[in-house]
Amino acid sequence: MNASQTMAGRQFIAGRRIASGEATLLSLRAVDGEATGHRFYPASCEEAAQAAEAAQQAFAVYSQTTPQQRARFLNAIADELDALGEAFFAIAGQETALPLARLQGERARTSGQLRMFAGVILRGDTFAARIDIALADRQPLPRPDLRQYQQALGPVAVFGASNFPLAFSTAGGDTASALAAGCPVVVKAHPGHMATAELTAEAIVRAVVRCGLPGGVFNMIFGTDIGAELVRHPAIQAVGFTGSLAGGKALYQLAQQRPQPIPLFAEMSAINPLIILPQALQTRAEALANELVASFTLGGGQFCTRPGLILALRGAGLERFKSALCAAVAGSPPQVLLNAPTLQHYRQGVAALAAHPRIEKLASGIAAGAGQAQTLLWQAQVEDLLAQDTLLQTEVFGPLSLLVEVDDEAQLKAVVKALQGQLTATLHAEADDGPLAASLLPLLCEKAGRVLFNGYPTGVEVCDAMVHGGPWPATTDARGTSVGSRAIERFLRPVCLQNAPAALLPPALQDANPLNLLRLVNGQWTREAISSSH
Amino acid sequence: MNASQTMAGRQFIAGRRIASGEATLLSLRAVDGEATGHRFYPASCEEAAQAAEAAQQAFAVYSQTTPQQRARFLNAIADELDALGEAFFAIAGQETALPLARLQGERARTSGQLRMFAGVILRGDTFAARIDIALADRQPLPRPDLRQYQQALGPVAVFGASNFPLAFSTAGGDTASALAAGCPVVVKAHPGHMATAELTAEAIVRAVVRCGLPGGVFNMIFGTDIGAELVRHPAIQAVGFTGSLAGGKALYQLAQQRPQPIPLFAEMSAINPLIILPQALQTRAEALANELVASFTLGGGQFCTRPGLILALRGAGLERFKSALCAAVAGSPPQVLLNAPTLQHYRQGVAALAAHPRIEKLASGIAAGAGQAQTLLWQAQVEDLLAQDTLLQTEVFGPLSLLVEVDDEAQLKAVVKALQGQLTATLHAEADDGPLAASLLPLLCEKAGRVLFNGYPTGVEVCDAMVHGGPWPATTDARGTSVGSRAIERFLRPVCLQNAPAALLPPALQDANPLNLLRLVNGQWTREAISSSH
Repeated sequence: MNASQTMAGRQFIAGRRIASGEATLLSLRAVDGEATGHRFYPASCEEAAQAAEAAQQAFAVYSQTTPQQRARFLNAIADELDALGEAFFAIAGQETALPLARLQGERARTSGQLRMFAGVILRGDTFAARIDIALADRQPLPRPDLRQYQQALGPVAVFGASNFPLAFSTAGGDTASALAAGCPVVVKAHPGHMATAELTAEAIVRAVVRCGLPGGVFNMIFGTDIGAELVRHPAIQAVGFTGSLAGGKALYQLAQQRPQPIPLFAEMSAINPLIILPQALQTRAEALANELVASFTLGGGQFCTRPGLILALRGAGLERFKSALCAAVAGSPPQVLLNAPTLQHYRQGVAALAAHPRIEKLASGIAAGAGQAQTLLWQAQVEDLLAQDTLLQTEVFGPLSLLVEVDDEAQLKAVVKALQGQLTATLHAEADDGPLAASLLPLLCEKAGRVLFNGYPTGVEVCDAMVHGGPWPATTDARGTSVGSRAIERFLRPVCLQNAPAALLPPALQDANPLNLLRLVNGQWTREAISSSH
Repeated sequence: MNASQTMAGRQFIAGRRIASGEATLLSLRAVDGEATGHRFYPASCEEAAQAAEAAQQAFAVYSQTTPQQRARFLNAIADELDALGEAFFAIAGQETALPLARLQGERARTSGQLRMFAGVILRGDTFAARIDIALADRQPLPRPDLRQYQQALGPVAVFGASNFPLAFSTAGGDTASALAAGCPVVVKAHPGHMATAELTAEAIVRAVVRCGLPGGVFNMIFGTDIGAELVRHPAIQAVGFTGSLAGGKALYQLAQQRPQPIPLFAEMSAINPLIILPQALQTRAEALANELVASFTLGGGQFCTRPGLILALRGAGLERFKSALCAAVAGSPPQVLLNAPTLQHYRQGVAALAAHPRIEKLASGIAAGAGQAQTLLWQAQVEDLLAQDTLLQTEVFGPLSLLVEVDDEAQLKAVVKALQGQLTATLHAEADDGPLAASLLPLLCEKAGRVLFNGYPTGVEVCDAMVHGGPWPATTDARGTSVGSRAIERFLRPVCLQNAPAALLPPALQDANPLNLLRLVNGQWTREAISSSH
């Protein structure tokens, strides 16, 4: 493939490709940092503004489309993604070092996610329709007719993640949920996989054209520091971000300091504590050790749900568990990370742990070659966790975990209370551990968006019941999720119509209930039409 | 009534009354600014922290109470409020200058609101239960069992409004919705009606005791600048605020700049545009004028939904409408405002309008005596609205409105697009105005939380379908509402349990569905139990 022939490298603005200046951004191979040959133009501030304005322009039409129209569009994007062939996987593999099977799986997840959102809007719950009919004779005052439903918030800026070049990137969950809500999108392409982003964006644009939608429904810009311009632009009404704590915090502050602050949902940082209760430790020490190492090294440890903190109660099974854990780590192969900056961050994180006077290295994996990350297991002291030593709760992105031995139940509860907010918390417990598990559950629910039993947090199912969120610093708003059908709620707002003439009511709020929605009518959930005699 | 005997004037912390220093805060009569005789102790920083910590302490127990327990508590507060007698209304009337009938009506609204939230949590929608059962045989990977419900966010700080000493204050909508959600509350009493707040807080404390709940479920502190301490305290997890734009913005920035930012829902500022289309103007010019003046002068113009901007299309009925409007204003009596600062703000707002070179006074009400506010009608130029002159969109709290004549439909749409976010927008239209009304509707929905037809925005029904919210600067988050049953959602967050043992599942998520909830099970809304054969 001749790179210069196939990649324009320009911004995607309202269906056109625009660029100015020089194509100075280089797509790099993850494995050795060499250029893939594809070059990209960094967006100018003006181009960022044009992208935001294109989205705003498209909002008037797109926000008024029917669920059927939007579902057709989401399905069309899914079809276009599924049609991407060898060339796509070749470049995505080069840019991320992710194996083909993983990329194919992630593609299936991404198109599946788009189709799920199509189903969600067709199901109609996102209208969240509520009707309180007029009570003309109520004393002391009549009640007016009040009808509420949800509408699109406005243009959304999306910042994709490095670690999921498909599922959390250009056509990922933030884009899918914003488009499902009726919000046009401006993506800031991740600099770690720009060629992958370009081919994905082209697939989306083909779907936009096929569905006859305004070009500004989808826009994408390249660049490294240009994200701030997007977040500051008055046309942008919400932001979805997946990335680092530092990056998320910086954009969050920008979003709040605008003349008109806007909601920014950032999924940022978690160490995903995994707690092993005594009976579980005793019953399955070896299996736990092997499964746990497989989980924290999965995908190079580059999952936001990687279990980075292992809390084990001192007791009969602990030494066996530790031995098995060390053995599993020792046999763990080194891995190429997503890109050079990720490897550098990993090494910095490792150095910080090594420099801590009370953190010791328990085990090392097979020696790493140049450009590879070695699997590592560390042990820290419970007192430092209780003292809220921040290093012990700092996410290190890579194949590493930290073991902390806990004396007893009381100390375990104190440790859980000292934890920061998390995406996940996991409890391994057997029947005999039941009472302790029961008393830990509310504490864990207070700390995490998802609480797992006898499993591993890596692997986030896309479904109605999923929560991929949690208290700060896991995310900027514990009330949101970036995975699962509830992700769409971040981009919707309620509007109430009072005494609207029947002719002006949207279908979702009409007496006859033509969309067959489940609606809250006079305090009762029902799909029935409202009788005209009310 | 001997004030010093009946009012402790101390902080309410975990069921105890605590104070340090001198009782330097004076309760004042609205009508003349003289002291009522009741004195209050400003909370120290330490006392503010104690209040927040008391709420945190109570959270563990209170957040785990059943809907039945919380409903009983909310109903008990309502009963205690309804039992307040003459002495309560006497002091509330002194502190606010609101007439007895208004205060009685507001009390009924407040206790009714508490009972509504009791009903909402018993109905169970706030659990928002979603279940995706395990699919052990799914390819390529099995699906785990995932069950999501909503939990209380944490302790909530509440800042009540001056203009509704009951319904938006100590026991008002923010407190009621937070308590309904399972969140303990710390109220910062409004300095404009501290004695009213004290008697209300005592009523709540009696309900806490009657229901056997931890004392820290409800706390209240007095003070003028102490609110910032509350918002900064790490135990506080969300804030509800009703008040000025300046006050809301300042607390919002504080909430976002904490080490752990928290959601703050502030209802702040709106001018509530009211648009009159040609046919409506022609058909009911006089009635419109009279009703409109009654609406913008209601309660001294001290409603956040007061129509402060009248947009009338030039045409046949306009001059008749203007004459009728001026006549209605001329006959409008002066009113005592809530307190001296409110009157001072009103006079400052009037002076700013008077100083504007292109804003003219159209009509004045009956001359105001000392301490009273005169009804005023002003006219501004459409060009200044289009140029986004901020003075034309600044809320002036008091009996005043601003008329702007609009040339034609195109200009009207441009004006609507130039408006800031609003709590409400109102359209007066007759059948012949239909097409224009239809094309304006999406524009108005983009700007406001509630869009009314042929009515007046003052008067906010407490019900499921209400939205008392809207885009900035109406509120800090267009996705929320501070009135109606959806207000509770501001204080809830979703949590997902993965593969939880049946014995540990909360009732809302158990297979048998013992609470008879409407749940989203495998993508279908149902009240049915999950069969054990799944």
